[in-house]
Amino acid sequence: MARLAIPVAVRWADLDAYGHVNNVAVLRLLEEARVAAFWHPGEGEPEYPTAVLHAGPGSQTTTVVAKHEVEYLAPFGHLRDGVVVELWVGHLGGASIDICYEIYDGSTDPATRADDGAPRAPFVRATSVLVMLDSRTGAPRRLGEAERAAWEPFVEDPVTHRRRA
Amino acid sequence: MARLAIPVAVRWADLDAYGHVNNVAVLRLLEEARVAAFWHPGEGEPEYPTAVLHAGPGSQTTTVVAKHEVEYLAPFGHLRDGVVVELWVGHLGGASIDICYEIYDGSTDPATRADDGAPRAPFVRATSVLVMLDSRTGAPRRLGEAERAAWEPFVEDPVTHRRRA
Amino acid sequence: MARLAIPVAVRWADLDAYGHVNNVAVLRLLEEARVAAFWHPGEGEPEYPTAVLHAGPGSQTTTVVAKHEVEYLAPFGHLRDGVVVELWVGHLGGASIDICYEIYDGSTDPATRADDGAPRAPFVRATSVLVMLDSRTGAPRRLGEAERAAWEPFVEDPVTHRRRA
Amino acid sequence: MARLAIPVAVRWADLDAYGHVNNVAVLRLLEEARVAAFWHPGEGEPEYPTAVLHAGPGSQTTTVVAKHEVEYLAPFGHLRDGVVVELWVGHLGGASIDICYEIYDGSTDPATRADDGAPRAPFVRATSVLVMLDSRTGAPRRLGEAERAAWEPFVEDPVTHRRRA
Repeated sequence: MARLAIPVAVRWADLDAYGHVNNVAVLRLLEEARVAAFWHPGEGEPEYPTAVLHAGPGSQTTTVVAKHEVEYLAPFGHLRDGVVVELWVGHLGGASIDICYEIYDGSTDPATRADDGAPRAPFVRATSVLVMLDSRTGAPRRLGEAERAAWEPFVEDPVTHRRRA
Repeated sequence: MARLAIPVAVRWADLDAYGHVNNVAVLRLLEEARVAAFWHPGEGEPEYPTAVLHAGPGSQTTTVVAKHEVEYLAPFGHLRDGVVVELWVGHLGGASIDICYEIYDGSTDPATRADDGAPRAPFVRATSVLVMLDSRTGAPRRLGEAERAAWEPFVEDPVTHRRRA
Repeated sequence: MARLAIPVAVRWADLDAYGHVNNVAVLRLLEEARVAAFWHPGEGEPEYPTAVLHAGPGSQTTTVVAKHEVEYLAPFGHLRDGVVVELWVGHLGGASIDICYEIYDGSTDPATRADDGAPRAPFVRATSVLVMLDSRTGAPRRLGEAERAAWEPFVEDPVTHRRRA
Repeated sequence: MARLAIPVAVRWADLDAYGHVNNVAVLRLLEEARVAAFWHPGEGEPEYPTAVLHAGPGSQTTTVVAKHEVEYLAPFGHLRDGVVVELWVGHLGGASIDICYEIYDGSTDPATRADDGAPRAPFVRATSVLVMLDSRTGAPRRLGEAERAAWEPFVEDPVTHRRRA
């Protein structure tokens, strides 16, 4: 019932010859938001304010990306205030989790990004399927109760990706 | 009825802490293969042997990526012989083209990668939707006859991406 | 007599297998600070607070990097608060400018980074030589009065790079 | 008295808006050549033909980059045949090694790149200082006899970098 809103800086090196963030660089922005959301602070390291999802996997878990699906809806450039990646859980599977994202202009008021009847216009809409592996065996392992409890508040309807008719 | 087989070098910088090519870096390998396939040599520049798809868009066309869908089936590392990206056309739309890809170990014999009954085991399976825009207006423009003629020999069944049940 | 202090976010993708920012990624941080310092806002675009150096080159100028010299003094990781790149002009040449940089932990108080007797400990010390070319001819062109006036307040002693004895 | 000549592929993503390899991307080409030259094959992995320098550091050694100095002499683009990085040892120190590089067009005949009176025109000239650390203590450790023996055949005069007068 909630989304994380994670600010991510855009870099000049992300731009292509048209001054738009390159389509591959967009995945770096999603990665950066995902890492922030799941961040495990090391000993003595500060915690991310957005790192609410890290209750789950510990050092015995390797999280791998099984799939990305990314739709580019509108081009965007080197925004002074960067972007905000809205991130939520689209599905909790047995040994996997679907992370959904929308990327917005970081200078827009969060209120106007909210679903209040105003047109919402993300630049990008995406889904990543993450699979949790047991680091010792390399085999998928079931999500635990602590993980489900930490992530359930962030479950919302998944992104509906367009299919060709 | 044919695929292009495009060798792409893997870089040490593509690897993550596990020694595997990072999931975002995989999209750079696909991009490199796609550019090679569509390469327009400049005046006096050599032509790519794989650049058979460049019959179409000219300088009045801007080709944009509308969507990527990428499945990671098996991890791979800094292969001495790089990878081979097999690339074909999954669908010719009105103003768009679906490019399909599979990534294989570059050291394997192409014959054993062929569909001869032996198990085929790509590392990655992916689809990109490209849309052709008129560079002057920015609006999608219909594919021309020359483009369709150049691309039709490379139309094969599209990749079937796994959906969650 | 002044330095610019430009905050730059570190990305997870900048890290190597040891959890340190990769030596090549460091140059991306310097590039990001340099672009911010010289930023020319487009029409209607916001101005960077740090973009005090943009008085000079206009659209008839192409600025190229002729040289980088970068010393890595201490490793650093994915700092929650990113880094601060201190940037100044080490030398104003006829058709070139030497940009000097030091990279500091972004969470440190600027006061304690100041030269107040406390040990200053940058992670990185670097110099870039930029050359201004006339975009039409490609030939180096002399710096103008407006450029010199804009940049002179930021001239300080250049970084002294270590040489092997 | 010998140099290694290491072919490295250029990627489309290395290019800037002018169609030239970006100055930071050049360091990725140097890194790729350096890794190839020092490559330690894992068990069962093929050896690089260029990996003649790997006699030295074993798993108890961490090699860190202490410094890069890079001069950009001529721009270059997405060369069909990539580049050749010529790499040699400019200096063997107590606990460090200076690696020197020149980058050439990969399509040129090596013979015409040789020092036969013809003008040699590298795109880039660079030096990296690598320091060998004891992985357990993190302190610099002296080069051993095996390392010196492996590297001495590749010692040549170092690159002379231009200094401002």
